[in-house]
Amino acid sequence: MSGYIQEDLSPEELAHRARLASSIAGSVRDLIDATVRTEVDEADIDEARRLIEAATAILRKDQLPGPFGIRFNTDGTKRSWGNAVLGRRNPIAPPVVLHHEPDVSWTEVELGAAYEGPAGLVHGGVLALILDQLLGSTAEYQQVPGMTGTLTVRYRKATPLGRIRGEARVDRVDGVKTFVTGTISVDGKVTAEAEGIFILPKWARGDKSDVLRRSVGEG
Amino acid sequence: MSGYIQEDLSPEELAHRARLASSIAGSVRDLIDATVRTEVDEADIDEARRLIEAATAILRKDQLPGPFGIRFNTDGTKRSWGNAVLGRRNPIAPPVVLHHEPDVSWTEVELGAAYEGPAGLVHGGVLALILDQLLGSTAEYQQVPGMTGTLTVRYRKATPLGRIRGEARVDRVDGVKTFVTGTISVDGKVTAEAEGIFILPKWARGDKSDVLRRSVGEG
Repeated sequence: MSGYIQEDLSPEELAHRARLASSIAGSVRDLIDATVRTEVDEADIDEARRLIEAATAILRKDQLPGPFGIRFNTDGTKRSWGNAVLGRRNPIAPPVVLHHEPDVSWTEVELGAAYEGPAGLVHGGVLALILDQLLGSTAEYQQVPGMTGTLTVRYRKATPLGRIRGEARVDRVDGVKTFVTGTISVDGKVTAEAEGIFILPKWARGDKSDVLRRSVGEG
Repeated sequence: MSGYIQEDLSPEELAHRARLASSIAGSVRDLIDATVRTEVDEADIDEARRLIEAATAILRKDQLPGPFGIRFNTDGTKRSWGNAVLGRRNPIAPPVVLHHEPDVSWTEVELGAAYEGPAGLVHGGVLALILDQLLGSTAEYQQVPGMTGTLTVRYRKATPLGRIRGEARVDRVDGVKTFVTGTISVDGKVTAEAEGIFILPKWARGDKSDVLRRSVGEG
């Protein structure tokens, strides 16, 4: 499949690239927050724009022809650095950092002004976005990966902007379908619940299943 | 409710602010894409970061203490400029621009490298994010608004990065619950289907319902 790339990078080179990706994306995340919240006047906006456009021109001197894709390295790790939720190189991603334990996968993440829906609250769709990734990655970690078939999110109460915790568990596996459940909570109280049904794609059910199965390490 | 702000801005002032918001957020959107796709070396990354941080410092000279919130203007329009899907001032938002017709609400939007999930494909959670907003706004336009109660998304086939079309309709209203259905399609083929159940919050069921009901214009 196009966009799935095999690489052979040394640990030092990987660490170097990770540091660079996080540093530039982190700067842009801070800029995003400043853009949402700024109250400066037109002259300052114009000056900021000039600086931003100069930065963009530098970054575009040498660039990928399309999206980042997913990179597998010979050490068994996988990089989804362009991913809209996990991607350390993607300023849209908070990024979410997942922790996998034997029976639960979890994350804690701070969501600022850029993730707003109703006033002062996390956008319900942002919770769905994070849950989709969390549930899918949980299935992948448990070696029962797949593409999202159905995602259902039940919103129990408002989720204020700030720190949230996500948790997910594989509930059961039925043939090529894996059922994963998860929650979002704030201060120990559940604000949203989700169920995801992940389906192993046809192309991955035979010999090619190693493409999805071989790696759970997220660099 | 905190974060719901009443303002009295002239049409000229609103237009001026809209232009400024779109210009700065548009620059940052372009920078986000460049950040995901850049291949430049460390010296260039460092130089770009310096420019970005200088821009951020300018924008932070005067800023809102928190998120943008939702602003109602005396002319009856509503601004959700910080919204993670619609917000013209929020670089995370594509932004989605909604079109409301009597029996259908729709949007067409280009999703680039920053919205990637599986390699080359739109992140399933990004589709859920857009559908949540599209369905909720459709209910609001039909004067049966509410907070999302349940969102169910069924993924029918992969959605490649690029142009997508979203459509939504109010299916039925049952007391304080509104059922809205929607689709995402690419080149006329449906790739995802959604149903949303939106519930009028208790605080909005009595006298205060005008807060949600009074306005459907999105500035």
